Amino acid sequence: MKLITILGSTGSIGTQTLDIVRDHPDKFKVVGLAAGNNINLLAEQIREFKPEIVAIRDSNKLSELKDAITSVSPQPILLAGEEAICEVASYGEAQSVVTGIVGCAGLLPTIAAIKAKKDIALANKETLIAGGPVVLPLIEKYGVKLLPADSEHSAIFQCLQGVPEGGLRRIILTASGGAFRDLPVEKLASVTVQDALKHPNWSMGQKITIDSATLMNKGLEVIEAHFLFGLDYENIDIVIHPQSIIHSLIELEDTSVLAQLGWADMRLPLLYALSYPDRISTNWKALDLVQVGSLTFREPDHNKYPCMQLAYGAGKAGGCMPAILNAANEQAVALFLQEKITFLDIPRLIELVCDRFSSDNRPNPSLEDILHADSWARKAVLEQVSVLA
Amino acid sequence: MKLITILGSTGSIGTQTLDIVRDHPDKFKVVGLAAGNNINLLAEQIREFKPEIVAIRDSNKLSELKDAITSVSPQPILLAGEEAICEVASYGEAQSVVTGIVGCAGLLPTIAAIKAKKDIALANKETLIAGGPVVLPLIEKYGVKLLPADSEHSAIFQCLQGVPEGGLRRIILTASGGAFRDLPVEKLASVTVQDALKHPNWSMGQKITIDSATLMNKGLEVIEAHFLFGLDYENIDIVIHPQSIIHSLIELEDTSVLAQLGWADMRLPLLYALSYPDRISTNWKALDLVQVGSLTFREPDHNKYPCMQLAYGAGKAGGCMPAILNAANEQAVALFLQEKITFLDIPRLIELVCDRFSSDNRPNPSLEDILHADSWARKAVLEQVSVLA
Repeated sequence: MKLITILGSTGSIGTQTLDIVRDHPDKFKVVGLAAGNNINLLAEQIREFKPEIVAIRDSNKLSELKDAITSVSPQPILLAGEEAICEVASYGEAQSVVTGIVGCAGLLPTIAAIKAKKDIALANKETLIAGGPVVLPLIEKYGVKLLPADSEHSAIFQCLQGVPEGGLRRIILTASGGAFRDLPVEKLASVTVQDALKHPNWSMGQKITIDSATLMNKGLEVIEAHFLFGLDYENIDIVIHPQSIIHSLIELEDTSVLAQLGWADMRLPLLYALSYPDRISTNWKALDLVQVGSLTFREPDHNKYPCMQLAYGAGKAGGCMPAILNAANEQAVALFLQEKITFLDIPRLIELVCDRFSSDNRPNPSLEDILHADSWARKAVLEQVSVLA
Repeated sequence: MKLITILGSTGSIGTQTLDIVRDHPDKFKVVGLAAGNNINLLAEQIREFKPEIVAIRDSNKLSELKDAITSVSPQPILLAGEEAICEVASYGEAQSVVTGIVGCAGLLPTIAAIKAKKDIALANKETLIAGGPVVLPLIEKYGVKLLPADSEHSAIFQCLQGVPEGGLRRIILTASGGAFRDLPVEKLASVTVQDALKHPNWSMGQKITIDSATLMNKGLEVIEAHFLFGLDYENIDIVIHPQSIIHSLIELEDTSVLAQLGWADMRLPLLYALSYPDRISTNWKALDLVQVGSLTFREPDHNKYPCMQLAYGAGKAGGCMPAILNAANEQAVALFLQEKITFLDIPRLIELVCDRFSSDNRPNPSLEDILHADSWARKAVLEQVSVLA
């Protein structure tokens, strides 16, 4: 029986993790849940999974949540606010913490969990992208496992299991190409939020779906892969693979290539991050290559996806630049979702903000440097919006 | 430095193994070579690789071989005949023996190598297909490694490296579909030997190329996979994959699928069988998925490839039936290559011979039973040819 805590339990990652727990009550038990503000779903989860501790980020909703779970016995410890998420992350006997909080908000709770010696099922990219220089030494210091729970890095991690030290030469991340993969580049100027939210293969949160349309998703994954697997950026490639069946590949020193395949189902990487190194038997639909019929590959178009190059640039710059890139992207995507900027403004704003920061960038940033860079970049995006307008 | 002996050094597997040795003189050294009757090539190999011992199967060629290598110093031990192959297989300090002898002729030398406690780089299918019931207990008894050196089983073996005990659910062998993959089934009756030898992807020996056209190749690999990886026949599938880029796949208990990919180059599985568990750096061309463009899959057509079903049937029957299937196939393919029977006679003859044997089949055969079955099946094919005619 593995005891787990889920941060972001009402989001896409969280609900899919709870699907796994529901299907395997003999393997997993929920210790803690943390969510943003979706009271109804969180209350339902508390009634079903009976966690010991629960946090809601939006303090205004605490009494409403209390009222919704009066019938639950025993009552969980109920907390509210940003600090409370960290408290849940580090609480009790949980062995593994699923970090399903989107964006840089996931960084501090993840650090709290690591310091409490809990393994991390990592579904929050920013933990490494922004926090890499700080988080990796902590992982080492506290001797915990950092297990990727997103499909691409899980694919690489699965493929790497039998590979000896020094055997890895290259990582090839597959990208669906997102909502606009078949749209001519000149039409991108006029796409709407609704257009951008139509992901062809995956059902995910809004922010990640937009990142998938800009391919910033993949750019961020390149940076994450760099931190997780220790390869130089020259050895991390992106290939467009519209079917999203091959979730990523690795090339070894002898040129052998290993790949992990599966349907587009987030539960599989989540399950492996929770069951590692075991493989738990499921009744999920087996992959059927004949039904898939064809797997295709093409070069990503840098003109169409400028975010990709911005990410490689930020990754190579190092220091706080990945944090700047990530925060600027979060802010720009939020503005796009609010229909305050166009789709093509997203890379424009990120580039302007990264350029402004570049003279201040320095290696080996502290956690404070990173958090400062994060909030600076968000403000800088808002300032630049007025420049663009 | 790994010391290796190569059985079948002048064949397709042998020459490609020697290419690897030539490229990595710091990693591999040749101790022994054995070949059939290609004196010129064998003499050249002796001059280049300076083995300690050499055997030629065809005793009539021994003096010619001696004359061809008078300038080599020090002179290798020179032997001739079937027994001599076994002597080379078990000779000296060699740690690993590459079994590149085609057909059932490879069985006895492989057993000799196992008994001399040498790891086996297995490129000879028949060792397990015919000899499985006898060879597997010997592998166990002498504590040696049986490392698949053909592309499909190597792919499975590579994918399995990080998989925990009990994690494997299914094996999916990919098949190019051979020379006639795009030919309508009704045209198979009139194909020639030359047609059948035109393999679309792989450069291999004649016998294996014909097996690839009938898909007996894949049927035999199913039986080999059963012995190598311990799965029931129900859990070993075949899928047609014309590009031969994915060399095979495994499905795990959680439905995750792992695949090994690469260009159609036999050297890669050979290198891994020799370097296992290490990965030796090569300058071979990296796989380029964008250049490949598309990987396709379709169900194999049982009407077109009756040999496949014959192989599953023989595998499930167990005992000596796989040996019968294999020997009948070798004999039938030889007759086809001599233009004495048609392409469609190959499965017809095999089926007739398997049917004739079925009442005599029994479990747990001895080596003598297997060798007897092998020679009986060859004779039976010749007898059946007259019935067909």
